[in-house]
Amino acid sequence: MKKMNMKELAKELNVSIATVSKALRDSHEISGLTKKKILEMASKLNYTTNPYAGSLRNKKSKTIAVILPEVADSFFSLAINGIQSVAEKKGYHVLIYLSHEKYSNEKSIVGECNSGRVDGVLISISSETTNPDHILKLQKENIPIVFFDRNFEGLNISSVVTNDFESGYLSALHLIKNGCQNPVFLSISSSLGICNKRAEGFRSALIEKKTGRIKNPVIICSGTYQEINSQIKKLLTGKIRPDGIIASVDRLAMSVYLICRETGISIPNELKVAVFSTMETAPILNPPLTTITQPAFEIGRIATELLFKKIEKKAFSVVDENIILPSFLIERTSTAAS
Amino acid sequence: MKKMNMKELAKELNVSIATVSKALRDSHEISGLTKKKILEMASKLNYTTNPYAGSLRNKKSKTIAVILPEVADSFFSLAINGIQSVAEKKGYHVLIYLSHEKYSNEKSIVGECNSGRVDGVLISISSETTNPDHILKLQKENIPIVFFDRNFEGLNISSVVTNDFESGYLSALHLIKNGCQNPVFLSISSSLGICNKRAEGFRSALIEKKTGRIKNPVIICSGTYQEINSQIKKLLTGKIRPDGIIASVDRLAMSVYLICRETGISIPNELKVAVFSTMETAPILNPPLTTITQPAFEIGRIATELLFKKIEKKAFSVVDENIILPSFLIERTSTAAS
Repeated sequence: MKKMNMKELAKELNVSIATVSKALRDSHEISGLTKKKILEMASKLNYTTNPYAGSLRNKKSKTIAVILPEVADSFFSLAINGIQSVAEKKGYHVLIYLSHEKYSNEKSIVGECNSGRVDGVLISISSETTNPDHILKLQKENIPIVFFDRNFEGLNISSVVTNDFESGYLSALHLIKNGCQNPVFLSISSSLGICNKRAEGFRSALIEKKTGRIKNPVIICSGTYQEINSQIKKLLTGKIRPDGIIASVDRLAMSVYLICRETGISIPNELKVAVFSTMETAPILNPPLTTITQPAFEIGRIATELLFKKIEKKAFSVVDENIILPSFLIERTSTAAS
Repeated sequence: MKKMNMKELAKELNVSIATVSKALRDSHEISGLTKKKILEMASKLNYTTNPYAGSLRNKKSKTIAVILPEVADSFFSLAINGIQSVAEKKGYHVLIYLSHEKYSNEKSIVGECNSGRVDGVLISISSETTNPDHILKLQKENIPIVFFDRNFEGLNISSVVTNDFESGYLSALHLIKNGCQNPVFLSISSSLGICNKRAEGFRSALIEKKTGRIKNPVIICSGTYQEINSQIKKLLTGKIRPDGIIASVDRLAMSVYLICRETGISIPNELKVAVFSTMETAPILNPPLTTITQPAFEIGRIATELLFKKIEKKAFSVVDENIILPSFLIERTSTAAS
């Protein structure tokens, strides 16, 4: 069907172009009835406003961007549900961009969010990100930003996270209480604040309880899927083996389980395993997996509410807030006392 | 930092505005050296092209949209990786939109993709979609479209799917061979072609082998998470119980496992279970879960290559293709012969 322009639409309705334009922009100068009439005719005649032209004028894209490392992780798919629950009510579209844990991708995506393409940005930074300049540049453009789950420490930008230090500390205590003498923490980054806080909490518990013979109990797992697998296999079959593992993300725990299955290491008898995760499959794994479960949906929901506070007011008039929601330990067979 | 306009940038470089404009549009009229000089200065002086103004002119958003039902399913997260592997090479951004299995969401998202906002659309339709008008409207606007995994049957639009009938047929034969006398197929929709083909294949095997006492062995599971759980629980604890299940998606198999665990039904002794899935956790579940594994990454990759064929030529000059990639059965303990 041929597309109609605003002039033709106005002629069809026997009103001025200005009236049509104002009605389509939902101006208060036009009555509800007239707006309804114009919108109905526009829809009937296949009139499409050009989103770019419209955005140039009213600077509202009615879209928010969510930038996150991956969707294969259960945390992020639940957080997205929380984000969309708020955005839908506001009549906003949600664009999901994946950085695949690469800083270069994240930088390029953040660059895309400049210049009115989106009204606000929710971001969970990649495990490689050590330089916040791309985010600061976006902030200078007055684009509202909120961090969720993984923030960049020390910036004056709102964030919604979980109690990482405390969770790391409590997870280590749990392993020690159930008999571990050499627990380790598997991290995915030496720069991510979230991983470092969990690792610091973990380390503090070990020092406090004078536990552990492994020199550095915090191990950074990085590289391709295969590289991480062989790194973990080396650890689990090496000379000084850990007897307990806290994994920082789903896929590290999955690797540990697969390698234990392959090499015949018995969980929890020879190795106790727990993971920071919201995995739905945790209770039906063999054996059921202990999780430190983050309030993923809530983190997404509250971060989005903060973002809309900023979008609806002027960004600079809203005080930046840092909200910390508690995670909780769900004990299952994988960490049972021997 | 103050943003610079094109005029100021031209003045700074001592060239004409037209030269700057052409260089930023990568015009062949400008030499490589001049382009490089202009781009470097633009970057140094914080010059940002307005993407909306730019898009009005050259009608390239360098963006493709991926519309899919959910990301919690392992199939879709792998397919996204396949999609991004191609888009990255082409220098395109990928926007992910989730329909959450709702037709109304899908319709509104597809509407967003009109009018030059994206250069092409990859779509896997929601389980509620029975009317293709929104997709046909997009096609009329000459936006290239490719279906992946879940297509709308009977439209003249390219698609990349798997051999659904055959996989349904073979999965039923596998259950029958291992001793099932009353297998059922758990579907998520009575309208999705992909589910119906799998169910038809399943049903054909039952008829051929004269197996099954359950009147309708294809059960549609729909509603909220809780509603689906209670539907499955009723089925597994009812008078005429199935002794075999083929689940069409991850989450139905997860429900079956959780309910069996809760009610003490033994897999595979009392109930054999298999699922259409690419779940990484399948081998470490209790018991390890038999899967009909789709080539998810390849489906995403090939669909995106088809889409770029259309984007790079004119959409109407490319013949629409329907590509079928084979799935394969991976036998694990959950369907072992009793």
